[in-house]
Amino acid sequence: MIQHPAFTVEPWAVRECRLHLDVLAQTESVFALSNGHIGLRGNLDEGEPHGLPGTYLNSFYEVRPLPYAEGGYGYPEAGQTVVNVTNGKLIRLLADDEPFDVRYGTLHAHERVLDMRAGTLVRRVDWTSPAGGRLRVTSTRLVSFTHRAVAAVRYEVEAVGQPLNVVLQSELVANETVPHLADDPRAAAVLEAPLVLEENEAADNGVGVMVHRTRLSGLRMAAAMRHEIDGPEGTRIEPDGGGDVNRVTVATRLEPGRSLRLIKFFAYGWSAKRSRPALHDQVVAALAAARLTGWDGLCADQRRFLDEFWAGADVEVEGDAEVQQAVRFGLFHLLQAGARLERRPIPGKGLTGSGYDGHAFWDTETFVLPVLTYTHPRSAADALDWRRSIQPLAEDRAAQLGLKGAAFPWRTINGEECSGYWPAGTAAFHVNADIADAVVRYVDATEDEAFERETALPLLVSTARLWCALGHHDAEGKYRIDGVTGPDEYSAVADNNVYTNLMAQRNLRAAVDVATRHLDQAEQLGVSLEEVAVWRDAAAAMFVPYDERLGVHPQSEGFTRHALWDFAATKPEQYPLLLHFPYFDLYRKQVVKQADLVLALHLCGEAFTPEQKARDFAYYEALTVRDSSLSACTQAVLAAEVGQLELAHAYLGEAALMDLRDLEHNTRDGVHMASLAGAWTGLVAGFGGMRAGQGLMCFAPRLPSALTRLAFRLRYRGRLLRVDVTPGAATYELLDGPPLTLAHHGEEIRLGRQPVTRPVPSPPFPRLEVRQPPGREPVPRRPRAT
Amino acid sequence: MIQHPAFTVEPWAVRECRLHLDVLAQTESVFALSNGHIGLRGNLDEGEPHGLPGTYLNSFYEVRPLPYAEGGYGYPEAGQTVVNVTNGKLIRLLADDEPFDVRYGTLHAHERVLDMRAGTLVRRVDWTSPAGGRLRVTSTRLVSFTHRAVAAVRYEVEAVGQPLNVVLQSELVANETVPHLADDPRAAAVLEAPLVLEENEAADNGVGVMVHRTRLSGLRMAAAMRHEIDGPEGTRIEPDGGGDVNRVTVATRLEPGRSLRLIKFFAYGWSAKRSRPALHDQVVAALAAARLTGWDGLCADQRRFLDEFWAGADVEVEGDAEVQQAVRFGLFHLLQAGARLERRPIPGKGLTGSGYDGHAFWDTETFVLPVLTYTHPRSAADALDWRRSIQPLAEDRAAQLGLKGAAFPWRTINGEECSGYWPAGTAAFHVNADIADAVVRYVDATEDEAFERETALPLLVSTARLWCALGHHDAEGKYRIDGVTGPDEYSAVADNNVYTNLMAQRNLRAAVDVATRHLDQAEQLGVSLEEVAVWRDAAAAMFVPYDERLGVHPQSEGFTRHALWDFAATKPEQYPLLLHFPYFDLYRKQVVKQADLVLALHLCGEAFTPEQKARDFAYYEALTVRDSSLSACTQAVLAAEVGQLELAHAYLGEAALMDLRDLEHNTRDGVHMASLAGAWTGLVAGFGGMRAGQGLMCFAPRLPSALTRLAFRLRYRGRLLRVDVTPGAATYELLDGPPLTLAHHGEEIRLGRQPVTRPVPSPPFPRLEVRQPPGREPVPRRPRAT
Repeated sequence: MIQHPAFTVEPWAVRECRLHLDVLAQTESVFALSNGHIGLRGNLDEGEPHGLPGTYLNSFYEVRPLPYAEGGYGYPEAGQTVVNVTNGKLIRLLADDEPFDVRYGTLHAHERVLDMRAGTLVRRVDWTSPAGGRLRVTSTRLVSFTHRAVAAVRYEVEAVGQPLNVVLQSELVANETVPHLADDPRAAAVLEAPLVLEENEAADNGVGVMVHRTRLSGLRMAAAMRHEIDGPEGTRIEPDGGGDVNRVTVATRLEPGRSLRLIKFFAYGWSAKRSRPALHDQVVAALAAARLTGWDGLCADQRRFLDEFWAGADVEVEGDAEVQQAVRFGLFHLLQAGARLERRPIPGKGLTGSGYDGHAFWDTETFVLPVLTYTHPRSAADALDWRRSIQPLAEDRAAQLGLKGAAFPWRTINGEECSGYWPAGTAAFHVNADIADAVVRYVDATEDEAFERETALPLLVSTARLWCALGHHDAEGKYRIDGVTGPDEYSAVADNNVYTNLMAQRNLRAAVDVATRHLDQAEQLGVSLEEVAVWRDAAAAMFVPYDERLGVHPQSEGFTRHALWDFAATKPEQYPLLLHFPYFDLYRKQVVKQADLVLALHLCGEAFTPEQKARDFAYYEALTVRDSSLSACTQAVLAAEVGQLELAHAYLGEAALMDLRDLEHNTRDGVHMASLAGAWTGLVAGFGGMRAGQGLMCFAPRLPSALTRLAFRLRYRGRLLRVDVTPGAATYELLDGPPLTLAHHGEEIRLGRQPVTRPVPSPPFPRLEVRQPPGREPVPRRPRAT
Repeated sequence: MIQHPAFTVEPWAVRECRLHLDVLAQTESVFALSNGHIGLRGNLDEGEPHGLPGTYLNSFYEVRPLPYAEGGYGYPEAGQTVVNVTNGKLIRLLADDEPFDVRYGTLHAHERVLDMRAGTLVRRVDWTSPAGGRLRVTSTRLVSFTHRAVAAVRYEVEAVGQPLNVVLQSELVANETVPHLADDPRAAAVLEAPLVLEENEAADNGVGVMVHRTRLSGLRMAAAMRHEIDGPEGTRIEPDGGGDVNRVTVATRLEPGRSLRLIKFFAYGWSAKRSRPALHDQVVAALAAARLTGWDGLCADQRRFLDEFWAGADVEVEGDAEVQQAVRFGLFHLLQAGARLERRPIPGKGLTGSGYDGHAFWDTETFVLPVLTYTHPRSAADALDWRRSIQPLAEDRAAQLGLKGAAFPWRTINGEECSGYWPAGTAAFHVNADIADAVVRYVDATEDEAFERETALPLLVSTARLWCALGHHDAEGKYRIDGVTGPDEYSAVADNNVYTNLMAQRNLRAAVDVATRHLDQAEQLGVSLEEVAVWRDAAAAMFVPYDERLGVHPQSEGFTRHALWDFAATKPEQYPLLLHFPYFDLYRKQVVKQADLVLALHLCGEAFTPEQKARDFAYYEALTVRDSSLSACTQAVLAAEVGQLELAHAYLGEAALMDLRDLEHNTRDGVHMASLAGAWTGLVAGFGGMRAGQGLMCFAPRLPSALTRLAFRLRYRGRLLRVDVTPGAATYELLDGPPLTLAHHGEEIRLGRQPVTRPVPSPPFPRLEVRQPPGREPVPRRPRAT
């Protein structure tokens, strides 16, 4: 875990004032830069030491075998793993024949700052080499939001106190040695040196280029670099290249106080189809465009892009400076993950690490896209257009499984199922309803007609067909979906999971709605009115089990009759439970890894009465251990809705600080996009009470005692809204766009040019007593006021 | 499939009149010889051609890695695979410089006969070599029932029509090349040449010895041979050895009509502990003993052993010659699998092939031991003593899983769990109740006091403890066992599987009974009266779900609410279903691979009324596809009990002929012990209606129309019984032992010296209409009268 205070608490930056080598991998994730196409981990410029060297291109992967002790029909035989591609951020430094390495010599100062308005990572070092030469290095790194293929570093080294002979080696390096990759020797063999060299052109003409391809997945990538160098007279520049290294060496002598400055532009491209020469030219052209813009131009564009983003997305929190920082940190990483997707997925860890093999999950649709839909809708559309693009593969998968429509993969990079454990993979069909839900949300938020016809309609039709293949009417006419896995990974393969059934119902209804409104296009997909009627009937008859004895909804049919987990006998070091207990034991007992029924209370709130929500929330609080990063934010939202405001604040803190405090001990592999989204969700959907759908945005704001103010901005149907909540009142303001009707605690308000203020009512019903499993209360924190 | 008539239909032999190379592997399994310690597949003497070369020693295995695409807590990391050990049955023949190979030259005649009274495999060949030399070979092979470590071959070659130069090479060969072993390259590496040479001593002193060890499992084995050779003057004998081959070469010239005869004795030993010299001496000593007995002595001992077996085990069938042959074939292989176990397991395929990796399953306790208990009880005791010997490992496994008592492995050789797919492995906890059931049955059948104290008590206590860890009382006091897998492998991880719950109930009651009767010994195992009371309460409150609407028992809770499998849309070539549909789909629908609820109707018959049995049987008939060899015999038993006698006869035929007709297309890997047992079960428990327990043996005989007589012998509590059933009457005869009370269709009969005859009543209730899934009716057959 990153011990507080690893980072200072500031509203617009994440600053590390001293280098902590023991958490180097974690900080590399936190300081990762990305634009959704290129991802650079926050590795030190000089490459070593490192936690995990990482440079990623969205959807550039290698195939790996998936082995099984006992195979089965329909098991995927091969998976995909994100590849650490050619490292372009590497700049080595030699001072008086001593390599600059923070593990040697004396490190007087070392600061790294992620600036969330500038979109840069700045590093400042003051170091004396073992030989006694002192130098200062300042580097500024960016991955451009405006030039999709381009990243750049401005690197400056200054001699301090005495002259220094300085050599910089700016490199492109492929097939870096990466720590531990896979237990399977076949997989390790494929992944150890994943890139096969096709071309290495040294920068004699100023541009160095390397082209590689993967062995099995058949993908080709190119990386190129060029430099602007500003140094004393006599500075010598020498390009060379060989094997997997392309290098420009800059040698000079620096008098005290003088510096050598190098600006490195580097560009990436990859393709499954384009030829080596085409890719070569593509990256060289990208460099030409970047150089035309220039370093200052890139920085200015970066800031402009972010200014516009923050204008529509910023969240202001008064009374909890950590959450203030964290919510912006989360929004910044979400933007980084989604800004320049262009029909590619948002992986669970974005492009910040190789965790989860670089796969995308339902996390994206259920946790990340709700934020981007209202803050940077283009990214949401891109991610869903990617789903649309892999629909043919999902249809093949459904056919392989004996189903109809499309069965989207549980985890994937290229669209093919990569899950090697079907009870917690293929059987978790809710991912299909989650995609449908994201589609409906996006259309509601944007009224994007073209998207509705070209993306939403086919996705909704194919997923509705899947549900009709998965469900059946029983003797009493109830529509059952048996033997599937819901969100909670401590249960699997159960009948009538409430979350799944309600989400499938919504999926079916949305398909009815959109197919009815676009009947011509729907007919081209083979949809008949008869089929639409089947969807309508299935939705209407959807079975939602209820335990009359306990007065709560079972997570799945029969769940509340299972034995309770023996929390009293579970030791603190036995969490996360999945590392200490067999799935067998977890699945058969009442113990919940992550919000499941409670997620249904949030996303399908209209299916529950307020009293049911309060009772259900209390029941599942006692069972939920939160061994997943996909839980605290949902618990925060529901806690707020049922009036447990202090508990909601505690969960919000946990969700918001997941990566900044490394609460799950795996930030080293990349930051958690879903949890980063959770800070926004906990604030906006939790304390803001925001729910939207069918053209109406509803709010039910209420603040916990520590917060004195919460203000947030949203984009909805061409409007830019600002909501400003204080303990006693909420003010709604239309910053841009035509008048809009919204709701405040159930009261409809027509919002025009004038801001509208309404009082915040007290919670309408008494709070139930709520307790968590012993030791599984929200992570304690002492929030600090701004 | 072996096309009829591959074998002649004879009462006491299995005879192949012509060699069919396309089914060579299947016949190697059918003709395998074993004594439970050594197993020799029916490979041709000269080694080639072969389907699968195989020589096995019970429990001699190598360790192999078990890989997982996604691992989990408690998954076994390593499995075990039976090793093809040193081949001692190999005798190559060279005639006038042409190797004897049935694929070349002209095969005038080739006959193989498995003689079930002699306990030998006899082969007669008449062959002309490509060069024109004609010869006759007669070989007789046996694996001794009386000398546990010894096998022998009498091999005779005769020149026909013209003189022949003949060379015999009698060999021990280790690390034979075996066809396809494993997909996993790591496993293949371990298993390709599993034996590491430690010693190869040529037979200069008349005895050739080889000692090898395995790489990972740390087991050592020795094989030795010596010969008696009878040939014309001038016959030269030359021993040599090197690498993995130990050879004796016999060269001679045979005049027409003259023959060369070689008797080869070979012996095996293995140990995890004993040294190379100790094992060396052990096998040499075994050879000395065998040679003292001599070939004729071995053959005479073999026949005596079998005479005694058949005197207590034979089943006579009139009206169905195929079943007559098959039931003896089955009993013979069961005896071969169990005769000289001495605390080793009976694998699913005995020692007849490497199928299922040589693992033992619940098949043994539930299908094989019921036969051996009443026909060769010493073997049942041995197999259960093996369970007792691995109890410490089972207790470790239970602890690893967070349970109490013992959790016996789903599949194993050495006692450690080898199942790589927990939903159909570890979760199938019924194996523990099956072991308990076999223990109770054995004690009931033998009144073996020492066994009860030393084996039954600890096994029953440890399994009862497991059930108490697995079950819990619900709010209404019902005792539930959630999330376990029953016998049917097309369902998994369900709540309150009726079979499991009833068998667990019986397990708990047996533990109460035996612990109460041996309280002192039980106390040494930590059993208190309080604990006994817990078992009693759990058994009394055991929940058995019942579907009131349909009037049938669901296989597991909720099963009858699941969608019915779409049999109409399932094509004939899509069976077995598990090769064409995902587990996901099979598990969530009403489709049954093998008797599950119906097995409960058989083994726990007292828990159901006759009407329930009839309704349940009819319900599950329509759902059961019999993609398992563990089903037809149970369906035969229940069909007979509910009065569906012709259907019972059809299922009996299928069970009985599983291997002789290769109905499941995998006899090549070894014969199915459970299905071989099924012929006896279908006849004795089916048409004989035999059920036993608590000192009372009950019969309810009724014959189908084709059978004119069924007679069988049983051993029970020191008695030897004979039951002789004709269509109208049943006669009970006590062949040995004191008087005994038994039951005939519910009427108690005191049986003394005089045979007692009783009429056979008509079935008491009208038969329900029964149908199977389309195309899944019992395999059609036209039974031939004797």
